[in-house]
Amino acid sequence: MPPTDAPTLFHETWGEHAALIARTWQPRERSLGRVATHVLDVATPEDPLELELGGRLEHVAVAYEEYGRRDRDGTNTVLVCHALTGSAHAAGVGERDGAPGWWDALIGPGKAIDTDRFHVVSSNVLGGCYGTTGPSSIDPATGRPYGTRFPRYTVRDMVAAQKRLLDRLGVTTLRAVVGGSMGGMQVVEWAATYPEMVRAIVPIAIGARHSAWAIGLNEVARRAITADPAWRGGAYRLDQQPEAGLGLARAIAMLSYRAPASVESRFGRARREEAVRGSDGLGAGEAPFQVASYLAYQGEKLVRRFDANTYLYLTLAMDEYDVGAGRGGTNAALSRLTMPALVIGIDSDVLYPEAEVRELAAALPNSTYARVSSPHGHDAFLIEFGQVERHLRAFLA
Amino acid sequence: MPPTDAPTLFHETWGEHAALIARTWQPRERSLGRVATHVLDVATPEDPLELELGGRLEHVAVAYEEYGRRDRDGTNTVLVCHALTGSAHAAGVGERDGAPGWWDALIGPGKAIDTDRFHVVSSNVLGGCYGTTGPSSIDPATGRPYGTRFPRYTVRDMVAAQKRLLDRLGVTTLRAVVGGSMGGMQVVEWAATYPEMVRAIVPIAIGARHSAWAIGLNEVARRAITADPAWRGGAYRLDQQPEAGLGLARAIAMLSYRAPASVESRFGRARREEAVRGSDGLGAGEAPFQVASYLAYQGEKLVRRFDANTYLYLTLAMDEYDVGAGRGGTNAALSRLTMPALVIGIDSDVLYPEAEVRELAAALPNSTYARVSSPHGHDAFLIEFGQVERHLRAFLA
Repeated sequence: MPPTDAPTLFHETWGEHAALIARTWQPRERSLGRVATHVLDVATPEDPLELELGGRLEHVAVAYEEYGRRDRDGTNTVLVCHALTGSAHAAGVGERDGAPGWWDALIGPGKAIDTDRFHVVSSNVLGGCYGTTGPSSIDPATGRPYGTRFPRYTVRDMVAAQKRLLDRLGVTTLRAVVGGSMGGMQVVEWAATYPEMVRAIVPIAIGARHSAWAIGLNEVARRAITADPAWRGGAYRLDQQPEAGLGLARAIAMLSYRAPASVESRFGRARREEAVRGSDGLGAGEAPFQVASYLAYQGEKLVRRFDANTYLYLTLAMDEYDVGAGRGGTNAALSRLTMPALVIGIDSDVLYPEAEVRELAAALPNSTYARVSSPHGHDAFLIEFGQVERHLRAFLA
Repeated sequence: MPPTDAPTLFHETWGEHAALIARTWQPRERSLGRVATHVLDVATPEDPLELELGGRLEHVAVAYEEYGRRDRDGTNTVLVCHALTGSAHAAGVGERDGAPGWWDALIGPGKAIDTDRFHVVSSNVLGGCYGTTGPSSIDPATGRPYGTRFPRYTVRDMVAAQKRLLDRLGVTTLRAVVGGSMGGMQVVEWAATYPEMVRAIVPIAIGARHSAWAIGLNEVARRAITADPAWRGGAYRLDQQPEAGLGLARAIAMLSYRAPASVESRFGRARREEAVRGSDGLGAGEAPFQVASYLAYQGEKLVRRFDANTYLYLTLAMDEYDVGAGRGGTNAALSRLTMPALVIGIDSDVLYPEAEVRELAAALPNSTYARVSSPHGHDAFLIEFGQVERHLRAFLA
């Protein structure tokens, strides 16, 4: 698959993504300004990407962005890794749609990840739907999207694709690898796979392996998608997504990304204006509370910017995440990671509870644990920029 | 509707219910033995049950059980209230299927709710599907199940139906009202509606109102049901339920009934034996973890014993729960409840966090707060019988 084919349907809907981020984005005086997403093919038929679970890809378009400049000895690159529905567009303003990056508050001149000092690389993960080859890409063998014929991949495969990207960019040392949630999984796998290349890590709001509860939440989200008749066994047209299923999957996930206290303070028991406390059966009184509208809205927004099959694959990859697998167990794997680590946990996180994050920190021989105190749950790493910035800035200094 | 019509399809499937309870049930030497569920009609066309949201029911079959004997002055009755998918069968062994009651460990001769001392009444809630009139009952006007034509009802309506049952049984004083989760909502509403009749209350694992997060969880569960084409707008045949949707709703709920630590210790990252770590697309590798099988199994079990429309109605009733509504606010409503109260919270409850339960206790002028310490989350009140028994026994002594 030629990399120029990479922009997918979902690239075209970043306007929605912008709206999402603008809500939490704090514009700064000094910004990176306009940035472009580039694409590189990191595999060839002669040098295919062999996947952990046995598949292979002969072409892998990787969408990526770069901010700041590499220094002479090439030791100032920071790799930033995105979460489940994120993209390569981590900072600056997208040249196509004017959308700020998902961590623009933290990446830029003078910011926590200071682009006056660091060269920053951010890429869309393998199997994503923001320009990197994945289930929504066109299968050159059929001329149609791969869908569920795309090979299964893992977080380790995401790291392998990023490694190939960095090879092609000439990056041989990483000053730090930074990311939260699924991004944090990549951070830990980077350290475990290439310990000699990674000088420091900042895993945020993640543990050493995916827990049974988190797997369970992904499982019910996947079932919401596959139960939608519009999913059609994964063979839907990209413009005829299983909207109800993907929207419901997102609504379920949103509850785990927030926390009881945060949802309570925002919505409490407020009712929708149009809601009738009806007596005549079910129809009249359905979904009377504002929190229901919020969840529906979050689902509708994701449906417009994300691919359902990709959601299935990425959540399965998250479920496979276990840094100790094939490395003699968690403690053995982590005890070898002697680079400085800043491990950040969120006190109200119900998806990756602070105890799991602390456990990761405790097993890393050269780590500092930092707590983000927030009512906002797991999503706090995309909201509490002030606290994250303070910890990051001190660690990278 | 004549009460003799009351047993529904779901009555016939208590065998499944038995299997559910047998897992956590600890047989005791002294048991109530065989018990029968009775049915009384508590409304007439001349004296219909007027519902809070405006509907009315001219006949209301209420399925109930009684254990122990009333004393001469009629002051030893304890009312026990069940949770979302529970039934009137709280104790003893069902005469039809041999199933132990859902709280048999706590109700019986010499047990915490000692039937040598107390007369115990337990009824299936208004709008349930275990013998009390609800959405799965036959609408006498059409000869078919009410389905979504059943009028909306609230926890206060459940209490009103229970009050009519007690009137007909000649019970004028309640020594205590006891229940957890949705049962706890009934307990609090009993105290607020009939403070002169209720001598003591034991609300367990519940706060003073349904939170936005809990509403959100119910909302996604309801969407799972209504998104299933087999739901047919609520007009499905009772033997052709929206099984996928109800099963998924249950799976979502189960995660909130448990807690990360409890699911982790039981399943961790154990894989299904038949699971293949396949590479060839999505099909081969789906649902590889045991926790997924567990969630699927829980869903399948509920589908065999519970009605999907009833699930929609009952969760909507839970969402309306707010003891302060129409009573000048939470604190005003609770400050008038001067009877002794034992409020029990569970430290690992993620659905009704301990902070909410403590808030309820703090607002009750004559209350004792007791903590159940458990890894099992919300469901601990159906699992940690030892701790609940100790608190209950001391309070009722």
